[in-house]
Amino acid sequence: MTHIHVLLKKEEIEPDKLKGEAVIVLDVLLATSTIALALSYGAKAVIPVLNDIDAHRLSAQYHPDEFVLVGEKEGRVIDGFLPPNPSLLKSYVKDKIVILATTNGTVALNRSIGAEIIYPACLRNGEAVTRDVVSHLKPGQKIIIVCSGSSNQFCLEDFYGAGYLISCLRDQLRGPFTINDAGLAAEVLFHSNAGAYDLLIQSAVGEFILSHGFEEDVREVVELGVDHVVPIYQNKQITKKGAVRSGTNKA
Amino acid sequence: MTHIHVLLKKEEIEPDKLKGEAVIVLDVLLATSTIALALSYGAKAVIPVLNDIDAHRLSAQYHPDEFVLVGEKEGRVIDGFLPPNPSLLKSYVKDKIVILATTNGTVALNRSIGAEIIYPACLRNGEAVTRDVVSHLKPGQKIIIVCSGSSNQFCLEDFYGAGYLISCLRDQLRGPFTINDAGLAAEVLFHSNAGAYDLLIQSAVGEFILSHGFEEDVREVVELGVDHVVPIYQNKQITKKGAVRSGTNKA
Repeated sequence: MTHIHVLLKKEEIEPDKLKGEAVIVLDVLLATSTIALALSYGAKAVIPVLNDIDAHRLSAQYHPDEFVLVGEKEGRVIDGFLPPNPSLLKSYVKDKIVILATTNGTVALNRSIGAEIIYPACLRNGEAVTRDVVSHLKPGQKIIIVCSGSSNQFCLEDFYGAGYLISCLRDQLRGPFTINDAGLAAEVLFHSNAGAYDLLIQSAVGEFILSHGFEEDVREVVELGVDHVVPIYQNKQITKKGAVRSGTNKA
Repeated sequence: MTHIHVLLKKEEIEPDKLKGEAVIVLDVLLATSTIALALSYGAKAVIPVLNDIDAHRLSAQYHPDEFVLVGEKEGRVIDGFLPPNPSLLKSYVKDKIVILATTNGTVALNRSIGAEIIYPACLRNGEAVTRDVVSHLKPGQKIIIVCSGSSNQFCLEDFYGAGYLISCLRDQLRGPFTINDAGLAAEVLFHSNAGAYDLLIQSAVGEFILSHGFEEDVREVVELGVDHVVPIYQNKQITKKGAVRSGTNKA
C-alpha cells in the first residue's frame, strides 16, 4: 500500500526517513515555481544551493558566460544576484546554468538529498510531476511531499500545493493508498471554494510579494497544471526529466 | 490590532512567547474534550499533569474519595487509571477532582503556563470560550491557539478545531485583526463542505478511537458550540470560569 506523507516545513525533514522514498519538494512562492519557469525559459539547469557563499564557490567552476546567480535571503535579493522572481528572469536564463540560493526551497531540496528520487514541484507542473512519480513508483515506496515553509513557519501556499498534488495523486494512483493527517487537511483545503490566487495573496509571503509590486509573478505561479516539463534533481542539478542531454539521445 | 496565531503542535510552543498573551489549547481527541465533558458531568476540577508519575505524586495530597485518576500514554490507558473517553467517565467524576494525564493535551496545557490566561477548549465549547477570550482581551494582547497535535505530529482534528475557533473569533472581534498562515488555512478547512464527523474519523487518532469501538465519543466531541461552560486553567487546576466556589458567591 502506498503511503502519501506531507511534511509541513523543511525543518520536519529527517534525512534518514527519506532513504528509498520518492520526494516532491514545494516552495510555491517562489523557489520551485522559479525553477519550473527557469527551465521553461530555456535554462540548461538549475543548481539549488544553500546560500550566497555556496553560490559564489560553485560559480567559480564555470565560465562567466555560462551561469547566472539568482537568489534571496529572508526575502531580500542577495547583493549582485538576480531576484528569483520569474517575471524578471525571463530574459536572463536561456541556455544558462542558474545557480539559485533561497531561504527555504533550495535548502529543502538540499536536505532531501538521500531520497531515491527528488522532484521540485509547484502548482504549474504538479500534474506532470505526480504522473511521473506514479509511473516510476516502486512497490512499498512512500511519496513524501515536503512543504518548504518559510523560516520554520507553516506556509499557506505550500500547503495548498500539497493539497493539489494529493488531488492529482488520487486520480493517478491505481492501488490503495493512505495519507497522513497533514495531507488529508491539505486536500480538503485545495478542494474548498477558495481560489488559488485569492488564497495565496492572503498568505504572509504572498502579501510580501504583492507589496513589492510583483502581482504578475503570483498570477503566473497559480496556474494549475499548465507546465508539462518534469524537473528532476539529481547529480546536484535540476534538469528537465527526459530532456536530450549533450552528446546522447538517452534521457 | 489583535493577532491570532495558530501553533500546529505543542512542540511549537515557545513558553517565552506566551507571556502576557491569551492562550487557547485544543486537543479535540480527546484531552480538552474530556476536560469540558468532565466539568459538565460535575467534576469539581480537572488537574492536567504530564504523566502517570506526576499524577500519583499529586494524588497523595488528596483523600482517596476526593479524586479519580484518568489517563493514557501514547493512546493506551495507564494501568490503574480510568480511560479518558468521555463516555466512560460520566459515572465516575461527579464532585471529584479529576487528575488527568495524557500524551498531548495535558502536556500542552502545562507548557502554556506563563501565558496571561489559558483556556482548554474543544469543539463543544469553542463559541463560549472565544466569547470569553474576546470580552477579556487586553489592548495588544495576542490570541494564541495551540493545537496539541499527537506526539510531534500535526493532527487534523485540532486543525479543524482551530478553524472553528477562528470562525467564532471573526464573528466576535470588533476591531481589525490579523491571522497567521496556519490560522488562515485552518479556517478555510473549517468552512469546507467536509463535515466534522466525517473528517475526524479519517484522522489518525479518529481512526484509532473508532477501531476501539468508541464511536460515541467521537459523535459527542464533534457537537459544535453546545457547551456553554468556559473552562479556565489557573492555579494549576481547570475549573468552570465564573462558577461559584466553596464559601463564596463571587466568581
